[in-house]
Amino acid sequence: MARIVMKFGGTSVADIGRIRNVACHIKREVDAGHDVTVVVSAMAGTTNQLIAWTQEAAAVYDLREYDTVIASGEQITAGLLAIALQDIGINTRSWLGWQIPILTDNAHGSARITDIDGTTLIEGFKKGQVAVIAGFQGLAPDDRVATLGRGGSDTSAVAVAAAIKADRCDIYTDVDGVYTTDPRIEPKARRLSKVAFEEMLEMASLGAKVLQVRSVELAMVHKVRTFVRSSFAAPDAPGMEDSINPPGTLICDEEEIVEQQVVTGIAFAKDEAQISLRRLADKPGISAAIFDPLAEENINVDMIVQNISEHGAKTDMTFTVPSVDHDQAVKILEKNRKEIRYDVLQSESGLAKVSVIGIGMRSHAGVAATAFRALAEKGINIRAITTSEIKISILIDSAYTELAVRTLHAVYRLDKG
Amino acid sequence: MARIVMKFGGTSVADIGRIRNVACHIKREVDAGHDVTVVVSAMAGTTNQLIAWTQEAAAVYDLREYDTVIASGEQITAGLLAIALQDIGINTRSWLGWQIPILTDNAHGSARITDIDGTTLIEGFKKGQVAVIAGFQGLAPDDRVATLGRGGSDTSAVAVAAAIKADRCDIYTDVDGVYTTDPRIEPKARRLSKVAFEEMLEMASLGAKVLQVRSVELAMVHKVRTFVRSSFAAPDAPGMEDSINPPGTLICDEEEIVEQQVVTGIAFAKDEAQISLRRLADKPGISAAIFDPLAEENINVDMIVQNISEHGAKTDMTFTVPSVDHDQAVKILEKNRKEIRYDVLQSESGLAKVSVIGIGMRSHAGVAATAFRALAEKGINIRAITTSEIKISILIDSAYTELAVRTLHAVYRLDKG
Repeated sequence: MARIVMKFGGTSVADIGRIRNVACHIKREVDAGHDVTVVVSAMAGTTNQLIAWTQEAAAVYDLREYDTVIASGEQITAGLLAIALQDIGINTRSWLGWQIPILTDNAHGSARITDIDGTTLIEGFKKGQVAVIAGFQGLAPDDRVATLGRGGSDTSAVAVAAAIKADRCDIYTDVDGVYTTDPRIEPKARRLSKVAFEEMLEMASLGAKVLQVRSVELAMVHKVRTFVRSSFAAPDAPGMEDSINPPGTLICDEEEIVEQQVVTGIAFAKDEAQISLRRLADKPGISAAIFDPLAEENINVDMIVQNISEHGAKTDMTFTVPSVDHDQAVKILEKNRKEIRYDVLQSESGLAKVSVIGIGMRSHAGVAATAFRALAEKGINIRAITTSEIKISILIDSAYTELAVRTLHAVYRLDKG
Repeated sequence: MARIVMKFGGTSVADIGRIRNVACHIKREVDAGHDVTVVVSAMAGTTNQLIAWTQEAAAVYDLREYDTVIASGEQITAGLLAIALQDIGINTRSWLGWQIPILTDNAHGSARITDIDGTTLIEGFKKGQVAVIAGFQGLAPDDRVATLGRGGSDTSAVAVAAAIKADRCDIYTDVDGVYTTDPRIEPKARRLSKVAFEEMLEMASLGAKVLQVRSVELAMVHKVRTFVRSSFAAPDAPGMEDSINPPGTLICDEEEIVEQQVVTGIAFAKDEAQISLRRLADKPGISAAIFDPLAEENINVDMIVQNISEHGAKTDMTFTVPSVDHDQAVKILEKNRKEIRYDVLQSESGLAKVSVIGIGMRSHAGVAATAFRALAEKGINIRAITTSEIKISILIDSAYTELAVRTLHAVYRLDKG
């Protein structure tokens, strides 16, 4: 008997038929004798409709009111799922963020969970009661509803799992796990049975949209074993009765991964733009002068490369921003030209970042060299490189994205398991 | 300067354009220096969608979950209206039932308000803040969301008005007031400028759908002057700047109505069914034997007439139920035949109840006789009559409804003011 959190995303609860299907998945685990807590998203489309209304009501709006409006989506699903569960004989009730309460900070619109008291939920287990919790929402210090930002229901689920010391957090979604790369680009992509938290963090932040980054961070900190699986599989499909072996990917501590691969996956992000500042004075504070004004405008700077300029005591700085932010970033840098003191600003859109990820590369030499060689053989020009302990990111022309992903997927033999 | 509660119904907030229009109505009163509290319904259509989902999820459902789902409709409107108000410079915030809190009993699905502490709202006035309250909802003793039953936002508005000792509760709706009868049946129907609480109570319960019955009861008990007016009038239309004189109907204490009419209005309800039990033993407890089993099945019995049977010590009992409940009512009475001990059960659907209402009839003789004579002249057969101090109700064949309404409207000269 285990204690399980089951989280269902928007497409999994898109209509009443799917909500009934979700109820059957839950019943399966309850019948197996597990203690179950459920976290739900809004029905697919609901959140977008609510956001559209909010934006139509005013161009600039109070995020506390936005939260009040948006949080109703998960409230609706929680009540409906509780009704569907009761209809098949499950002892259950819905819980809203303020009822548990799930406490957050005051950053309305993208609040962070500060505390969840698991006592009430654990009491519920003793009464054989399944809690259906509205995800994505909590109670802020101002006693108002707060939401966690898009995809926040994953974070709710992991936080609840940590609070009740769950054995596992099952994330039911419209894909059946985490793949070595996007199967739409490389049909030979293979589902991973296990991924280390650190690897998943890199994949999530690099555009593998299975799990929200913050939820992976939280899972890593609290060591919440997180199992990504499909809610579209029939609840009684072969293997589903066993909670952990069916199709799905377990995101866990690296110690639990016995056969460590050197490279686990290839991630990519299109629509990147590159900005280079040439012949900067190489002195302390220069990075802050560049990046502070960009941060103030919420422009997310990603790859940063600094190297010696060809002109002696000067330096060159190259970094990437999302393509949509390119024009504004350039405008900000030109406005601050006097403070930054660069000679030339060069920029280009239409780039892509391809990343090789694997916790095993920490102890293996030559991983990067293999990538560079493989890309060179295909005639793909590398514009910039950044590396971390478990990741190599390469900036290329966007037109070569698919070729680069397939080349790297093959060279690390990711189709072979 | 007055303290005003402004309530806006579902059609008044049906889309963002109308919500903006509502914001302008509110701004007009704020600019005039009034202390304003707002109560809103769900956007037209939302509640029906939510109820449909609930019913699709299970045929029989937990009303606590139903409440959680349904209450989200008003939550959405409250947040959106607050955003629209802030956009035109009004200091405001939304309040949900549990935040104020509006306390209710535990009768989920049709809860009654037990207490509203007006302190927080009155504090808000001191800060120049307009409260936008989600109507129709409150917090039950089980710490869960409760709803007040359909049309409950009117009740929320009147209860809030009582709690903050408002000078007036303005009910903005899709009609511009209370008429002497339904203008779709009698084009000469005239808008009443003032109606006494007791009269409105009879009109509401008799099918004039302007205000929910419970809200009128509450207004009468707490003497909340309630002003029914149109939200579709332009916020700056002639007369609207003056809070009380524009088109609209004030529902108030009869003492405030200087020129009392004998008859104020003609109400009607179609789709009534009549059930007669013949030759009942005329002994104590017989009414309970008939009506208790009907009440247990929530069948709403209306006109009840008992008279001596043509057969000596026996009695006849006639009453009406809504047509939709006819079959079930007959089935229940047949099942309880032994306990009730009647000789014959006769029933008929397709009837209508037409009522003459007027607080002035308490002190005027002959009002009923006038009605009977007028209907007789048109050849309309009267099947049953019940009277109260301020109302005469007449049961007729449904086909004569319009004729009866027009005849009575004319005979009491209601088109003349």
